[in-house]
Amino acid sequence: MANPTAAMLVIGDEILSGRTRDSNMHHLAQELTKHGITLSEVRMVADDAPAIVAAVQALAAGYDHVFTSGGIGPTHDDITADCIAAAFGAGIDIRDDARVLLAAHYARQGLEFNAARQRMARIPDGATLIDNPVSIAPGFTLRNVHVMAGVPTVFQAMVASVLPTLTGGAPLLSQTLRLMRGEGEIAEGLGALAARYTDLSMGSYPFQRDGAYGTNIVIRGTDGARVEAALAELAALFPA
Amino acid sequence: MANPTAAMLVIGDEILSGRTRDSNMHHLAQELTKHGITLSEVRMVADDAPAIVAAVQALAAGYDHVFTSGGIGPTHDDITADCIAAAFGAGIDIRDDARVLLAAHYARQGLEFNAARQRMARIPDGATLIDNPVSIAPGFTLRNVHVMAGVPTVFQAMVASVLPTLTGGAPLLSQTLRLMRGEGEIAEGLGALAARYTDLSMGSYPFQRDGAYGTNIVIRGTDGARVEAALAELAALFPA
Repeated sequence: MANPTAAMLVIGDEILSGRTRDSNMHHLAQELTKHGITLSEVRMVADDAPAIVAAVQALAAGYDHVFTSGGIGPTHDDITADCIAAAFGAGIDIRDDARVLLAAHYARQGLEFNAARQRMARIPDGATLIDNPVSIAPGFTLRNVHVMAGVPTVFQAMVASVLPTLTGGAPLLSQTLRLMRGEGEIAEGLGALAARYTDLSMGSYPFQRDGAYGTNIVIRGTDGARVEAALAELAALFPA
Repeated sequence: MANPTAAMLVIGDEILSGRTRDSNMHHLAQELTKHGITLSEVRMVADDAPAIVAAVQALAAGYDHVFTSGGIGPTHDDITADCIAAAFGAGIDIRDDARVLLAAHYARQGLEFNAARQRMARIPDGATLIDNPVSIAPGFTLRNVHVMAGVPTVFQAMVASVLPTLTGGAPLLSQTLRLMRGEGEIAEGLGALAARYTDLSMGSYPFQRDGAYGTNIVIRGTDGARVEAALAELAALFPA
């Protein structure tokens, strides 16, 4: 059976302007691969409601799971929760379970639980909360969309909260063969091998080090014996 | 007049599996911002022809420029050029100008210009070549789509070749105010300010350092005097 599929939506002007370098995508990609869920597409959009709503609708319809990062804080540019609700025609308001969590958190710190902070308790109707052990303000899951914070430590904590609740497939295994030959020299033999192992994916990644050309060949698949067999054939084809 | 808009399409299994961390998006975002072109959307897809073709068509129709990275080498998984041709119904074959560049390059190195290496001279009909001073194999521009390599040094060289040929707008200016206050404390005042300066974008990025909470407020716009005026109001609102 094929593994479940996923998409990610990264939300935020600061990523698209180049001010901030996104690191959440790379983290999620690695975690999903370990969990046997295939990350098939990523989109990054600005803090713009029509763009967010359209992307959520397209990705939620196209993949088993959608993971979003960014835009769930207390400020005016944090519009993700409202956009997710709009994408599914769900109502949204300050919800008691989220409000209780946040009220206790600010009381412990002696800080006012003001209107801006209460915005973080706005959760779409029908959503399940995602635990945030780092800074309390929760994410949420609505249908197949998992909505998480953009701050990397919080994002990572939320991914760790959500992933164990999802059914994964067989983890994707990979083996790498490092060849001190240029891509152009190995392309024909590699292509013929890939055509025979249609259940595996074979990627070729050139590098240059100390003036010499080389290529890393990565063979990926869910059946370890097949990956090993293809690797052995490849190694025999291009001896060191 | 509004600045031109752009989208980026990152192509490659190795990014989505988490094996490789993409760095081209961040580089392009910074260069476009300097050049006065607004990066509005990014998509990342696998080495999968239908996914690449669909993304190219959607982005080319939606934005003034599309920049792609990845998938233009000599191996079987390098399918970008053929997908771009298919997206626009253009023919594609080994083209003389590209073949001449590559033949000379391999002759200089004493390497065979074999069938795999000749694949890198496959250029869609009607496309213009993009210079590659690093490793010779050219990128190309077809209509509003600029097709570039995934290897970061080559990608960056190609961006430097293409950008000066494009009409930019006013560069996006930004100023940052660092406040040692949590987002929840400044959200109300910041929101009211943002509502009055609708020509600017104001982003708020929380951080935590040595146990203290703080927020960087970034004000962006193309009119420097407006950015300065908003910054001064913000600083007066939240004195250190």
